[in-house]
Amino acid sequence: ATVRWLMEQSIKVLFVTNNAGKSRLGLRDKLAALLDCEDLLQEEQMVGSAYSCARFLQQSLLGDIIDGTSSGEQKVVHVIGSDGLCREIEKAGFIVDNVPTDLSTSMSAEEVGNISDDEHMAVDAVVIGLDTAFNYRKLCMASYHLHRNPSCLFVATNEDAYDVVGLSRFQPGNGCIVKAVEHASQRKACNVGKPSQILVELVSKEHDFDPEKALMVGDRLDTDVMFGHVGRMNTCSVLTGCTTAKDLLDLKSSGNENELPTVVIPFIGLCMEDSGV
Amino acid sequence: ATVRWLMEQSIKVLFVTNNAGKSRLGLRDKLAALLDCEDLLQEEQMVGSAYSCARFLQQSLLGDIIDGTSSGEQKVVHVIGSDGLCREIEKAGFIVDNVPTDLSTSMSAEEVGNISDDEHMAVDAVVIGLDTAFNYRKLCMASYHLHRNPSCLFVATNEDAYDVVGLSRFQPGNGCIVKAVEHASQRKACNVGKPSQILVELVSKEHDFDPEKALMVGDRLDTDVMFGHVGRMNTCSVLTGCTTAKDLLDLKSSGNENELPTVVIPFIGLCMEDSGV
Repeated sequence: ATVRWLMEQSIKVLFVTNNAGKSRLGLRDKLAALLDCEDLLQEEQMVGSAYSCARFLQQSLLGDIIDGTSSGEQKVVHVIGSDGLCREIEKAGFIVDNVPTDLSTSMSAEEVGNISDDEHMAVDAVVIGLDTAFNYRKLCMASYHLHRNPSCLFVATNEDAYDVVGLSRFQPGNGCIVKAVEHASQRKACNVGKPSQILVELVSKEHDFDPEKALMVGDRLDTDVMFGHVGRMNTCSVLTGCTTAKDLLDLKSSGNENELPTVVIPFIGLCMEDSGV
Repeated sequence: ATVRWLMEQSIKVLFVTNNAGKSRLGLRDKLAALLDCEDLLQEEQMVGSAYSCARFLQQSLLGDIIDGTSSGEQKVVHVIGSDGLCREIEKAGFIVDNVPTDLSTSMSAEEVGNISDDEHMAVDAVVIGLDTAFNYRKLCMASYHLHRNPSCLFVATNEDAYDVVGLSRFQPGNGCIVKAVEHASQRKACNVGKPSQILVELVSKEHDFDPEKALMVGDRLDTDVMFGHVGRMNTCSVLTGCTTAKDLLDLKSSGNENELPTVVIPFIGLCMEDSGV
């Protein structure tokens, strides 16, 4: 309701997420239902990791053709990740190469030794999104492509270590897959999710806003608040997710005060209560 | 034949490998056949990562009971890795928990959220060895155990990035799996393989030798030669494996001359040719 009220006041609200599993439209539909904002929420307000990744690939491989129609040879992107991520990359004008030609999830040294260049397209980019069906064969193929083509782009939709799910369980995040492929290829991936400078620049370019008048609200210090800092925005921590009051106190006493948010509120609804609505 | 000749001269030869897939006896049998040394080679000359790991677990969890018979409660070790590694750890007196209770290789957020402490033993150590059937479910379970028990040991049999196999293909090594689990658990593993200090100490303790009179021979700079440096031994690079003459020249010109081996020979057989045998 707070978010609805903000939008009704013509305050510009953007939603920036490291979820690379959904297209912008998919994210919009999910959030509109959640926030009861079907009439107000636009696809353009959604900045997900899949969209950020597709735009970064366009800028890097196609010279920033915004409508995604490419002249000349089509570029090939090898994806570890969800169908939503693949579709967003295809929509941006790329051939996605992630069709499993072999259903086996393991790969022996002998099989790796016999990988043939003839059977596999040289790819222009390897993209890593969260894949809860990640396996050793996928690790082998991604690192094969990165070794084969030294100029191949290497993109991480985010570097998150884990998400907290269910009964205080930690679900390994996309960053774990990124670290595995980075070590195998001895290369560093470009992060296009929060808190990367690449994402700050994308948002600044596509949405006219003054960082000094913007407030980045989020429940994580390492991604949300850091993203606000990178973008020179004001930052607000809410305590309804990953970050706890103890985390904030620990950070303060550790001497890294520059990583603290500008303000802390227990939950975003408090904005509205304070405003008397 | 060179190795046979060295052993016939009563020169002490040890074989130190990051291969954690085989027991000492398994390594001995493989190497004895390869070197035609069935009559000379002893199991005790083999120092593999699986053995090193088992000894480290004994030192850390059982107070260094060398024969592996433990008094009191048995300790539980969760293993990602080969059967050879599991057997070596069992032989050292531990209960190995890596029986796949579920054949699925993927794991959804909902399943992670519903992991129940009641169904899973609390484990005393998580061990990572190369597993060419590594998958997301294994990543989830290893990081679950590390989050659940903050005093759980976390051991890497090695941190190798890759091996070169077949037609110049790069097979992702154990280090890739280690990096994934480290990121998910936000903890650092103890490396018990080359070039770790832990392995230097194990070899020094079990084999009476003077580092100044020892020569570490190997085909990799990052593991073999570095291991020699850590152990203050003389080092020798052979060019029959991973490291090329170009790697050595690159290292020299990079200014990291202290990482260079003491001597370089094209292949180990040259020792014997030089000696006139």
